[in-house]
Amino acid sequence: MDFGIWLLIGAALVFFMHAGFAMIEAGFTRAKNAANIIMKTLTDLCLGTISFTLIGFSLMCAEDYLFGVVGVPNLGIFTNFSSINFSWFVINLLFCATAATIVSGAMAERTKFSAYCIFSIVMSAVIYPIEAGWVWNANGWLAQMGFIDFAGSSVIHLVGGISAFIGAFMLGPRLGKYTVDKETGKKIVRAIPGHSLTLGALGCFILWFGWYGFNGAAAENLPQLGAIFLTTTIAAAAGTMVTMLFTWFKNGKPDVSMSLNGALAGLVAITAGCSSVDAIGSFVIGAVAGVLVVIAVEFIDLKLHVDDPVGAVAVHGVNGLWGILAVGLFARPLSVGADVISDTVGLFYGGGFGQLGIQAVGALAIAAWTVVTISVVFFIIKKTHGLRANVDDEIIGLDVTAHGLASSYADFLPVANSDLQMLSSKGKEKPVGTTAVIESEATVPVTVATVSSVDNSRMAKVTIITRQSRLETLKEALDQIGITGITVTNVLGYGIQRGNQIYRGVPVESHLLPKIQVDIVIRRELLDRLIKTAKRVLYTGNIGDGKIFIYDVENVIKVRTGEEGQAALWGSVTEDK
Amino acid sequence: MDFGIWLLIGAALVFFMHAGFAMIEAGFTRAKNAANIIMKTLTDLCLGTISFTLIGFSLMCAEDYLFGVVGVPNLGIFTNFSSINFSWFVINLLFCATAATIVSGAMAERTKFSAYCIFSIVMSAVIYPIEAGWVWNANGWLAQMGFIDFAGSSVIHLVGGISAFIGAFMLGPRLGKYTVDKETGKKIVRAIPGHSLTLGALGCFILWFGWYGFNGAAAENLPQLGAIFLTTTIAAAAGTMVTMLFTWFKNGKPDVSMSLNGALAGLVAITAGCSSVDAIGSFVIGAVAGVLVVIAVEFIDLKLHVDDPVGAVAVHGVNGLWGILAVGLFARPLSVGADVISDTVGLFYGGGFGQLGIQAVGALAIAAWTVVTISVVFFIIKKTHGLRANVDDEIIGLDVTAHGLASSYADFLPVANSDLQMLSSKGKEKPVGTTAVIESEATVPVTVATVSSVDNSRMAKVTIITRQSRLETLKEALDQIGITGITVTNVLGYGIQRGNQIYRGVPVESHLLPKIQVDIVIRRELLDRLIKTAKRVLYTGNIGDGKIFIYDVENVIKVRTGEEGQAALWGSVTEDK
Amino acid sequence: MDFGIWLLIGAALVFFMHAGFAMIEAGFTRAKNAANIIMKTLTDLCLGTISFTLIGFSLMCAEDYLFGVVGVPNLGIFTNFSSINFSWFVINLLFCATAATIVSGAMAERTKFSAYCIFSIVMSAVIYPIEAGWVWNANGWLAQMGFIDFAGSSVIHLVGGISAFIGAFMLGPRLGKYTVDKETGKKIVRAIPGHSLTLGALGCFILWFGWYGFNGAAAENLPQLGAIFLTTTIAAAAGTMVTMLFTWFKNGKPDVSMSLNGALAGLVAITAGCSSVDAIGSFVIGAVAGVLVVIAVEFIDLKLHVDDPVGAVAVHGVNGLWGILAVGLFARPLSVGADVISDTVGLFYGGGFGQLGIQAVGALAIAAWTVVTISVVFFIIKKTHGLRANVDDEIIGLDVTAHGLASSYADFLPVANSDLQMLSSKGKEKPVGTTAVIESEATVPVTVATVSSVDNSRMAKVTIITRQSRLETLKEALDQIGITGITVTNVLGYGIQRGNQIYRGVPVESHLLPKIQVDIVIRRELLDRLIKTAKRVLYTGNIGDGKIFIYDVENVIKVRTGEEGQAALWGSVTEDK
Repeated sequence: MDFGIWLLIGAALVFFMHAGFAMIEAGFTRAKNAANIIMKTLTDLCLGTISFTLIGFSLMCAEDYLFGVVGVPNLGIFTNFSSINFSWFVINLLFCATAATIVSGAMAERTKFSAYCIFSIVMSAVIYPIEAGWVWNANGWLAQMGFIDFAGSSVIHLVGGISAFIGAFMLGPRLGKYTVDKETGKKIVRAIPGHSLTLGALGCFILWFGWYGFNGAAAENLPQLGAIFLTTTIAAAAGTMVTMLFTWFKNGKPDVSMSLNGALAGLVAITAGCSSVDAIGSFVIGAVAGVLVVIAVEFIDLKLHVDDPVGAVAVHGVNGLWGILAVGLFARPLSVGADVISDTVGLFYGGGFGQLGIQAVGALAIAAWTVVTISVVFFIIKKTHGLRANVDDEIIGLDVTAHGLASSYADFLPVANSDLQMLSSKGKEKPVGTTAVIESEATVPVTVATVSSVDNSRMAKVTIITRQSRLETLKEALDQIGITGITVTNVLGYGIQRGNQIYRGVPVESHLLPKIQVDIVIRRELLDRLIKTAKRVLYTGNIGDGKIFIYDVENVIKVRTGEEGQAALWGSVTEDK
Repeated sequence: MDFGIWLLIGAALVFFMHAGFAMIEAGFTRAKNAANIIMKTLTDLCLGTISFTLIGFSLMCAEDYLFGVVGVPNLGIFTNFSSINFSWFVINLLFCATAATIVSGAMAERTKFSAYCIFSIVMSAVIYPIEAGWVWNANGWLAQMGFIDFAGSSVIHLVGGISAFIGAFMLGPRLGKYTVDKETGKKIVRAIPGHSLTLGALGCFILWFGWYGFNGAAAENLPQLGAIFLTTTIAAAAGTMVTMLFTWFKNGKPDVSMSLNGALAGLVAITAGCSSVDAIGSFVIGAVAGVLVVIAVEFIDLKLHVDDPVGAVAVHGVNGLWGILAVGLFARPLSVGADVISDTVGLFYGGGFGQLGIQAVGALAIAAWTVVTISVVFFIIKKTHGLRANVDDEIIGLDVTAHGLASSYADFLPVANSDLQMLSSKGKEKPVGTTAVIESEATVPVTVATVSSVDNSRMAKVTIITRQSRLETLKEALDQIGITGITVTNVLGYGIQRGNQIYRGVPVESHLLPKIQVDIVIRRELLDRLIKTAKRVLYTGNIGDGKIFIYDVENVIKVRTGEEGQAALWGSVTEDK
Repeated sequence: MDFGIWLLIGAALVFFMHAGFAMIEAGFTRAKNAANIIMKTLTDLCLGTISFTLIGFSLMCAEDYLFGVVGVPNLGIFTNFSSINFSWFVINLLFCATAATIVSGAMAERTKFSAYCIFSIVMSAVIYPIEAGWVWNANGWLAQMGFIDFAGSSVIHLVGGISAFIGAFMLGPRLGKYTVDKETGKKIVRAIPGHSLTLGALGCFILWFGWYGFNGAAAENLPQLGAIFLTTTIAAAAGTMVTMLFTWFKNGKPDVSMSLNGALAGLVAITAGCSSVDAIGSFVIGAVAGVLVVIAVEFIDLKLHVDDPVGAVAVHGVNGLWGILAVGLFARPLSVGADVISDTVGLFYGGGFGQLGIQAVGALAIAAWTVVTISVVFFIIKKTHGLRANVDDEIIGLDVTAHGLASSYADFLPVANSDLQMLSSKGKEKPVGTTAVIESEATVPVTVATVSSVDNSRMAKVTIITRQSRLETLKEALDQIGITGITVTNVLGYGIQRGNQIYRGVPVESHLLPKIQVDIVIRRELLDRLIKTAKRVLYTGNIGDGKIFIYDVENVIKVRTGEEGQAALWGSVTEDK
């Protein structure tokens, strides 16, 4: 009986994993979506709690379990509260919320929030509980068949990973993530670095910490729990180190964010077999996971061109599958005291292909169930409600547009650059405002007479102050007319805040808005062309299009060569500032 | 006996809640006070430990308990260590520190640190222990009366919330939080966004995690503990989701920081009844808390104009009260195995008004005790020692002024804007340096002859480099003379660091200090007036007042209209840049 | 048997301390090395797990223990898995990783990553296990002698602290940390503030939380565990508060980052005696630790000039020693129920000098072992592989150079200043590019004819755009020619990203790189000299040396004095902007 306290402590640890998910997903994505991704994690947990309580629990755990496939819904939790096994309910509830939250990372930075809520409810109410019942309800058909998934490599991680993949695929990539090179026609893949590696690392540590509860919760005695702690630690350590060495060998440098993923990959892979493998088995399982995660992240990104910002598919999907199969390879009878606490024997320990086959069947069944149901769910959401945030919202960031939060980091100015380099017109995505640009060529009276009439000798400095979101478009347009030597500064410019941002019930009012200032020193001959181009690409007809200032320049000196005047400028076109 | 381990694990979780408080309070306030608020949390914990050990514990828990009201102080912990129930001591000590730390959030960003230390000692040594003894000492008069507050909705949260309200009220609001519109005479409420929503969210997750220990610590058997985990989870999830939906419905967007508060509101509300309500009860309690917290945050801010930066009063005070009353509504006998672990029956379960009455009496008694004692404490501190940091310290930030820490984020430059937009001269607060400004009109020889004599045709660019803290005053003064189109850049300017900042024993030396650069392009006719105004409002007579640079401008083009020259500038006065 | 669950929960808490170390070490150092320091913590944990599993565990814990000094290596964990005491293995493994990770903080920001990995392996495989066996293997010679180190003040913290000191000493200080004043010949010590005090504080809270597991893990019954929780809490609180008061008294302000260290100092000091001292003992131990840590941090930095960025030597080394000796002073028999759970009596409780002598012998033996072995290890690494990152890598930051990560905070631009003020040419370190500068005087054709020929009356504005890393050199050179009134702005400038940064398998491509813009308004007479100087110090011959722009200035006004024109500039040389 007293061992039951552990189950609840394990539940608390599993709860805390949600903090880990929130931190790693926020840290690995951009600052402009930080609050949104935290809200999605919170929603998975809270809507999940409600959905699972109302429907999911009985679908999964009801004693009245039909055909080994599904429980009969009941509201025993409400009508017959005292007879509920509270601890069992709590741990299942918290496991359930985990499956959903895996998906939020893969769908980060571009999903319509309301669409995500719908997905989250269906996941926790129906999709997860049914397949989880197959494995963890003693009457489930996979349980009956001898399928082993001690703590959820397939039940939770494979399901989460597959859903993450389908979700990310149906959503499409973030703007600017994949573009097409105009000349070669090849896809160009861009890296979109996360905004806080420290938060991401914290998330990983919290997840690992929570995993002792996740893997250990169902342990029935102390030696078993000790063995689980041991295999979990070894697999995670092996995953981390193998990923570190593998990226070091492959890219010349040990990759930090991938190593963090490697730790999680090792943890996911050991989840199924944590109580049935030994030290060698757990080491190999973790080590293989550490390689798999790197290959999978790169394959999904570079080959499949599916945009999974946090690597959820590679970590949870691929390694969930590996973990569930690994039981069929490495399981061994583990005698603790007088008892043998598992009688399954894997292929490498002389058990033949039997268990491996069962594991494969189970994985296939769970994968098939998930693929079908989740595809239907996302398809229906996409066709009816819409799955993806609109382009402007995505560019501005979901914190502002979905939650009315001006910034998750109100005291710091984010760099325009990291976001907006994505918005290349090279890509297939139509750059924002393209339509407006075309119109503008007709509507804006491009009278540059005044400019042309000034002293055209020597050089001029042009300062453009405009919206942050126009930077990349402007940069490309200047590039095309041969002007590359620009300097960009984040400034606050006068304007009226658009949109109705509310912070804790109070409207946020601001007359100084983040703008970019672009400075360009050019030969007078190019001035005309520069101004024309800038006007063309910046024009949308809305307030806030910006201003262009022209100043005289006395001289310019290029340090490396000692060249002066226009000669100093020439170089900037071809090489550097 | 073995169940006692849980009590200590619970204590560790309650300890960890202090990390949660530190993170959520720091995240929801500004970067310039981050170290200060962490120090206050740390002080609550550590001074609290010492005060409670020396005095509080015996006032609360002494066996020699007078009149059901107060224990007789003794130093048994020192003289008779072995006979102490160590676990019981530890858990009480950590609960006590929690009550104090609730207050630090509400008093954030403007309290004199030494004043806060005094408050914290009195709270932990006397105020909390006495009322806690009423409820949790078996001989306490409320305990004897049958008052139920299982884990502290009233004992800790209501007390903390009331103290937070009185503290925030006696302190007054942060500078710029409430201002008076000069024309209408109405109060204008401004939002002051927190500097890190991710840290705030992390804090919320940590608190929820710790709450399993907080609510569960006093459980006496496993089923009871399981039920507590269950009701705690459901109430928190319900609170979060109801807040999310309520803000979504009310403001059009689901509010993230309020939803985090919603989670805490649900947790506070279920604290009293966590072991005596069922699934429906906990759901309703959490859901109501989710609405209450939003209404209370807005009421306190928008109507009462009491400035509580983190919502401590709404979360802990209002929902602490709701939680304690809710026991009288939703309590039900909960049979576990053969035993009935609670024989209280609330109104909605057929128990009549009896328990509700007892709950109301207890809440009233605890509230009255807190109102009286805390008012006296703050009043005395205010009149003798002073409660509030001085205006300059508040503007610069308490990290620098109270702790000599140049910045909690030394590698990042905070945005002047978010802090300093608060310092509007519209408000009742006298803007910093007002006196100096008035004097300056007399003392500064405003000779603008040179300026006036230059070419007055066309346009000029004026660049002002000055202290960050002067931005808002400058902006308003320019506004009044019709100049609005300014651009602000954060720069580092030459200067000698004022104040004696010491980092880990080493004086911090800096010759490049954060300054703001304000660029304004104006018609020549306005130049004179602009310079006069800038000189007037920037002058304090101290080193660091800044410089004004004037450059010639060749041309300006307004992108939206295509206008050039002075015509391009006109618009900036009335609409945008 | 059931009490054994606690051992595993304690292990999970000790695991979580690694998150604490990662956060406090990252927070107390600069943003440009954040990912590197996290990777080192992760490596300590993961390589430590592997090394300890393969070799360390049997050296420490083997039943076949030779001469009370060392175990006979065996691979029982692999060959005889079922007979391992899993829990015992796990807790020892996680303790071991802790010893190594203490060192990473002291060696932060300048260690070659591969060198650190080698150190980490040797530490976990050999150095720690052997001395730990002396104390914690029942057959160890110190254990046999009656040496008491309940949870590792010496075994872990003293060893970690000594290794940290020797590592930091052999590495040498971070660039710019200590410089020599040219006139007096005295060493100047500079403060290098950490980049996130909030993360640092979070790390401290996590460590304290984990410490309940660390100190408590080996408890054998509930009263003992309760006493450990109590002494641990009191000592930590006392350490924090005494540090706060001591810095307040000494420097006039309570120091936040030192107070966080004070908490850890108290925890380290109570670690040895947590189960054998009482409330008074733990209070005094913590209070003394709170003073010691401040004195030690300052002595090591200001007197010894050993650069320990996070205070690891003071916290773990000095207080580890204090803690181990304190057992000989404060230990007392603690009767719990009928049993006396410790029969050791310290000096102050009438036990004479016996135990104190044993403690001193043990501390000396462990210290000697550590000094010798770690010196050999670092010496060999230094002579063969190299211990320190090269100068350029250190300046740019190890995140970029060791891990190919452009930034741990991709959405935020770090301030050039905080890093680069370190690079003073005053110091003994040769400033980066010095050689190039000397060469440049010959190779760069310093033709300033054009510049000299322009209107030399009045004033000019010079704008220099160059690499961030050149700021300090430029600033000093300008200082020497009497120009101090500069303004520095962080900008993004055009350039090609050097180095091959890869983020999650995708090359990071960037055409806008962080640069600094330095603006200087000077009298025309100085223009020539300024340009010559700037060209000389900025020249390296590489792309990216930067450009110098010259503009005309119409007027300058100094706000404080009302002076105009050149008169307004004069002041900037001598006092302020």
